[in-house]
Amino acid sequence: MIKGVRRVSVAVRSLASALLFYRDALGFSVTRHLDLPERGLRLVRLDAFGTDIELMEPTDPTGNVALFLEQRGEGLHHVALEVEDIELEIRTLLARGVELIDRVPRDGPDGRIAFVHPRSTGGVLVQLSEPKAVMEGKGAT
Amino acid sequence: MIKGVRRVSVAVRSLASALLFYRDALGFSVTRHLDLPERGLRLVRLDAFGTDIELMEPTDPTGNVALFLEQRGEGLHHVALEVEDIELEIRTLLARGVELIDRVPRDGPDGRIAFVHPRSTGGVLVQLSEPKAVMEGKGAT
Repeated sequence: MIKGVRRVSVAVRSLASALLFYRDALGFSVTRHLDLPERGLRLVRLDAFGTDIELMEPTDPTGNVALFLEQRGEGLHHVALEVEDIELEIRTLLARGVELIDRVPRDGPDGRIAFVHPRSTGGVLVQLSEPKAVMEGKGAT
Repeated sequence: MIKGVRRVSVAVRSLASALLFYRDALGFSVTRHLDLPERGLRLVRLDAFGTDIELMEPTDPTGNVALFLEQRGEGLHHVALEVEDIELEIRTLLARGVELIDRVPRDGPDGRIAFVHPRSTGGVLVQLSEPKAVMEGKGAT
């Protein structure tokens, strides 16, 4: 049902600076650049051999990530868990008393996502992520 | 050289509460309990299908993790990257201008570790981790 830790996301002030470490010093390959003006974000994803590292730079100073940077500074922002069936996972977690931010999945850049409330997770913003490929393959795998 | 994201570590006030989510609601299996009085910590590790989740509860109110909880509250604490040869990795990162907390590896609960300074990583406390099994197998793999 849960397929593991898909991604660790980091809120940064500057993608260019963060890439000096994750791409140039560690040697991870950049797999995607995403410009998401509707979310006030630019993202870069790097392949860290199975689990991706995602770097998020705010482009909108009033957005969530800009607020996070202002309050907490740069750092780990959320962990994405890959799930096969996000609606089933949401129902399961609710039945187990977990508090969710999204009880209905919303569209992410490459699939459907829902956030679990940090109150239920030891302070971690956990994203459930159902990638498009999984959605398209449902029942056919 | 770097073998990927080995572990995501979470600072929590109560292992028991955090296990309600990671073990009971998400269904991850607990693989290890570690009591580390010398570090003022109790740890639980769960297998999240490749990348582990580590929960850290302070037992010493003056330790690093207790201080982290006091300053930032519960949440993501560090990311561990598994490396094959920690000394080589430290030399490589230093040569690439990365700031390290540990220029000499120290002993962790199951291998040798060294921390990279968050100033070089977009605010993330990154741990380089060379597991014992890798050390023992060096040159024999």
